[in-house]
Amino acid sequence: MTDTIAAVATAMTASGIGIIRMSGPDSRKIAGKVYRSKGGKKRIEEVSSHTINYGFICDGEETIDEVLVMVMDGPRSYTGEDTVEIDCHGGVLAMKRVLETVVKYGARPAEPGEFTKRAFLNGRMDLSQAEAVIDVINAKNEYALKSSLGQLKGNIQKAIQEIRERIIFQIAYIESALDDPEHISIDGYGETLGKEVELLKERLQQLLQTVREGKLMKEGIKTVILGKPNAGKSSLLNILVGEERAIVTDIAGTTRDILEESIVLHGISLRMIDTAGIRSTEDVVEKIGVKKAIEYAKDADLILYVVDSSVPLDENDREILELLQDKRAIVILNKADLDPVVTEDILRKKTKHAVVSISAKEEEGIDLLEQQMKDMFFDGELSFNDEIYITNVRHKAALEEAKRSLELVENSIQMQMPEDFFSIDLMNAYEALGSIIGESVGEDLVNEIFSKFCTGK
Amino acid sequence: MTDTIAAVATAMTASGIGIIRMSGPDSRKIAGKVYRSKGGKKRIEEVSSHTINYGFICDGEETIDEVLVMVMDGPRSYTGEDTVEIDCHGGVLAMKRVLETVVKYGARPAEPGEFTKRAFLNGRMDLSQAEAVIDVINAKNEYALKSSLGQLKGNIQKAIQEIRERIIFQIAYIESALDDPEHISIDGYGETLGKEVELLKERLQQLLQTVREGKLMKEGIKTVILGKPNAGKSSLLNILVGEERAIVTDIAGTTRDILEESIVLHGISLRMIDTAGIRSTEDVVEKIGVKKAIEYAKDADLILYVVDSSVPLDENDREILELLQDKRAIVILNKADLDPVVTEDILRKKTKHAVVSISAKEEEGIDLLEQQMKDMFFDGELSFNDEIYITNVRHKAALEEAKRSLELVENSIQMQMPEDFFSIDLMNAYEALGSIIGESVGEDLVNEIFSKFCTGK
Repeated sequence: MTDTIAAVATAMTASGIGIIRMSGPDSRKIAGKVYRSKGGKKRIEEVSSHTINYGFICDGEETIDEVLVMVMDGPRSYTGEDTVEIDCHGGVLAMKRVLETVVKYGARPAEPGEFTKRAFLNGRMDLSQAEAVIDVINAKNEYALKSSLGQLKGNIQKAIQEIRERIIFQIAYIESALDDPEHISIDGYGETLGKEVELLKERLQQLLQTVREGKLMKEGIKTVILGKPNAGKSSLLNILVGEERAIVTDIAGTTRDILEESIVLHGISLRMIDTAGIRSTEDVVEKIGVKKAIEYAKDADLILYVVDSSVPLDENDREILELLQDKRAIVILNKADLDPVVTEDILRKKTKHAVVSISAKEEEGIDLLEQQMKDMFFDGELSFNDEIYITNVRHKAALEEAKRSLELVENSIQMQMPEDFFSIDLMNAYEALGSIIGESVGEDLVNEIFSKFCTGK
Repeated sequence: MTDTIAAVATAMTASGIGIIRMSGPDSRKIAGKVYRSKGGKKRIEEVSSHTINYGFICDGEETIDEVLVMVMDGPRSYTGEDTVEIDCHGGVLAMKRVLETVVKYGARPAEPGEFTKRAFLNGRMDLSQAEAVIDVINAKNEYALKSSLGQLKGNIQKAIQEIRERIIFQIAYIESALDDPEHISIDGYGETLGKEVELLKERLQQLLQTVREGKLMKEGIKTVILGKPNAGKSSLLNILVGEERAIVTDIAGTTRDILEESIVLHGISLRMIDTAGIRSTEDVVEKIGVKKAIEYAKDADLILYVVDSSVPLDENDREILELLQDKRAIVILNKADLDPVVTEDILRKKTKHAVVSISAKEEEGIDLLEQQMKDMFFDGELSFNDEIYITNVRHKAALEEAKRSLELVENSIQMQMPEDFFSIDLMNAYEALGSIIGESVGEDLVNEIFSKFCTGK
């Protein structure tokens, strides 16, 4: 790790300001070769750390851009290394030229995530914090952002460290007792350990219980709107999408034949799933049939079933309501502004799901619907005082592995195995948890994790 | 100008770092309300100017993001006002939340270009420099970037100021002579002024002569490829687009039925024009006919006419060559790798345009073609020592108006009009030139110029 890396850290799109970032031992030296202050006297090699310096980036006699140069010496920098950030004009060509110039004078173009990887390798953050960086950047809603910030501030690291310390204490005790049986008694230890393992398993289980909510926060609630023609599916979607309170974005990586729009309602992401088929024929129930509807709905986290309250229920509604039985669903009674033929009471007799009356036309009842969704997925309230949400599948797998290892310890205790059997599985649990924070992880995994980052981070 | 403005200054796209910029008297105060240092002791109100400060943006108890806060007090800042820049994580939501937080605590969302407008109004730059900022950001090729940087560094301002000083000197002389005819003689002044006006007109003409090159630099060379079917038009386009040395980008604002691709070849932008019609039928000459080709070619800065050297010339070629007579064109003899039926000599007898042999298949001769284009449009070499290129239509119009006013002065001299007639037109020229650098411009024009900027600049 002796070279100096460089990359554009802002988006390569025309904007006010662009940042070219350098990290490594030669950052100041390279910056010194390309920086000219206005008067020509100031030298980047000599300025104080954590200062902002106005001037120009030059390649010999040629001026590349007018810039601010930010100097941050290690270890008080993001990577822990000497760092120089060049704020240039946010033009694509200007950013490219500044990057090319620092590369010409000795920097190496950075790989995606290489700055954060260095921060991890230099001990500036643990692996769970490094992973949180990319989650903060990609956060699509308030809760995902808050959860990632908590992780970035080390709440997962802290929770994992606490559990690991308790495990290593037990391992150390067993080892000591085996080494020095005369002074440390292991009589009845199985029972003590059994109680401790039970508590540890509970703690792991608590963390694992947040995985579902964590996933919904991070990825959004996969939502399908069903309903007969003219029930008001499109109107509902339009209201949800079109309100100023909603942000609509594309989700990358969706398949081509299924369109997905991401809506954020009061901090909750809904991934509204729409297929070209559904869109063009409009009528799922009659034309594509209930079978097709099942297919779309089976992976959904939430089904919004829109019923037209001005038209009597028919066989189709009955089939759909039956289909919804094992699903998370909300039955939406639309056209509350018209004289109802179908009432909330009638529907409640036919389904155990929540029934919400709205008028898509008058845009009434939407707040109730949103509150209902919040209640359903986040027990009504998401507060972020000290809560931890597991949003990372890698962490989930490690927690599950740790829990399985603790179960093996319990088995060994029950089967009255020798104490060193306990140690082996305790150590497995300890290492599984270590992989979350980046202890005992291999180089390959580290490389894979950071390859998901954008360049310049 | 007593309020404090704020905006996201980087692109609203997920990336490593995002910048939220504040400018105005309350910048530090607002930053102080939302900034928490790691230890909690450092106060932004008290740090030195031009320092970088690590910490968190908070809204009360809630952490919004982990950030670096850059403090730059006026007048040593971009706007000349107290400025604070917050470098946060480059997530769309993170940037949005940080901006919302500073707005909540007293900043006003900035209008597009408002930071640069303040820099202009505070005398940090003249209007031509302010206009250069947006040109630097939007520069699509090396030459446009260099030309805009020259303008940003004040080369146009300097040139205009020199001419204005010479004009105001003459106005002052006339006024003094009229005020004090006993001591300042105006005999034969008409002749002296006539010579000076001629020199000034020449200088304006020199600047106006750069308009064509300036426009080509800034907007690129509008290029149409013509040729019979299978002559190799597509291959040529593919080579020009596909080489690693080429950058292909979309140009915003192109009409829907005409596709345009921008290619940068050794620093020159070519706007390759292709129409859906031409693309799908492939053969302009035979299917759409020469008439259609004329239509596409008439607005072109450059026509590349591709001739298949392995097939004899026919009536179509003759028609096209005739069509090219009054145009800037290069005749490209393709398939130089095959036995030629048509040679460079044969073509040179039929056209006065440059003839270049290439093999699109073998990718040979492309360098020659590029050099030919450079020669044609930029006299072979673009150097940027002290050269000024006028790239702004507003500047062009002002230069032309100044030149017309000087011509009126010449008329008045010839017609032996009284000296105060000279003054009036000299003053018009003076003011027309002043509008380039932002003296004697109205508020409306200023607003219009800055409305073209992106937010955050």
